[in-house]
Amino acid sequence: MRILGIDPGSHVTGYGVIDKKGNYLQHVIHGEIKSKKDSSLSEMLISIYQQLSDLISQTSPEAVALENIFYGKNVRSLIKQAQVRGVAIFSGADKGIQIFEYSPLEIKKAVVGYGRAEKRQVQVMVKAILKLPEIPPADAADALATAICHANFLKDKPI
Amino acid sequence: MRILGIDPGSHVTGYGVIDKKGNYLQHVIHGEIKSKKDSSLSEMLISIYQQLSDLISQTSPEAVALENIFYGKNVRSLIKQAQVRGVAIFSGADKGIQIFEYSPLEIKKAVVGYGRAEKRQVQVMVKAILKLPEIPPADAADALATAICHANFLKDKPI
Repeated sequence: MRILGIDPGSHVTGYGVIDKKGNYLQHVIHGEIKSKKDSSLSEMLISIYQQLSDLISQTSPEAVALENIFYGKNVRSLIKQAQVRGVAIFSGADKGIQIFEYSPLEIKKAVVGYGRAEKRQVQVMVKAILKLPEIPPADAADALATAICHANFLKDKPI
Repeated sequence: MRILGIDPGSHVTGYGVIDKKGNYLQHVIHGEIKSKKDSSLSEMLISIYQQLSDLISQTSPEAVALENIFYGKNVRSLIKQAQVRGVAIFSGADKGIQIFEYSPLEIKKAVVGYGRAEKRQVQVMVKAILKLPEIPPADAADALATAICHANFLKDKPI
């Protein structure tokens, strides 16, 4: 089963694709979509949609996994992130792919083993679990961690 | 100039199309997109995108106008609304239409004359300005008011 993890952000959207073969997880690809500094909201949303659509047509994932939105931020950045998240969800949903979401706690537990892990520990564990040659950048690591979390939990109720 | 106003919401998304001919404003169409009670977030975002895309291809607006997101709400509904808003903006932007946004204050000023107007006054004034046979429902009225606001102000910087 192929899983696409997405970590939507107002500046950087991380993505990571993995294959689950029995209990074995295999890394396929990861990366980060960065919006240009001077790009408008409209341009940013178009760019997110196009790049995720390209990724989906190249990798054909069977499920998309995202983290719940994090409530602790300031409202301004929360709104920006939620707008990007809406388009990220849509870019998978409009291709008939089921979308699942997990809490930060579930994701950290799945990857590091406990829910209060630091960002760096997540990056290190993602590298180890997927046998990557080097530590992935933070937002791509979060996306891979979310995909790993779905591979482990396999929630049956899409959003 | 033809303007589409959109009032995105997590349950109801209002829309309204008007024509600006010199200083004269003409009503074209308005309505509300309601998500089914049992629909998932993915289904809702797909439905919003499809219905707005259909509306855009039927009416060919040259600009889309939206209200700034309202910060006073609880965070949960704010996130839901922002996700819908992201897809609503995308549905216009991916067709090359420029998107503009106005504050609630600007919209109420444009329609009622002062910024602290009640929802009902907006509905009544929208009916009067566009010579509608009856008062439009609240979310459609907000969308028409946003389109009227853009017709009056014509901001030159899209988002």
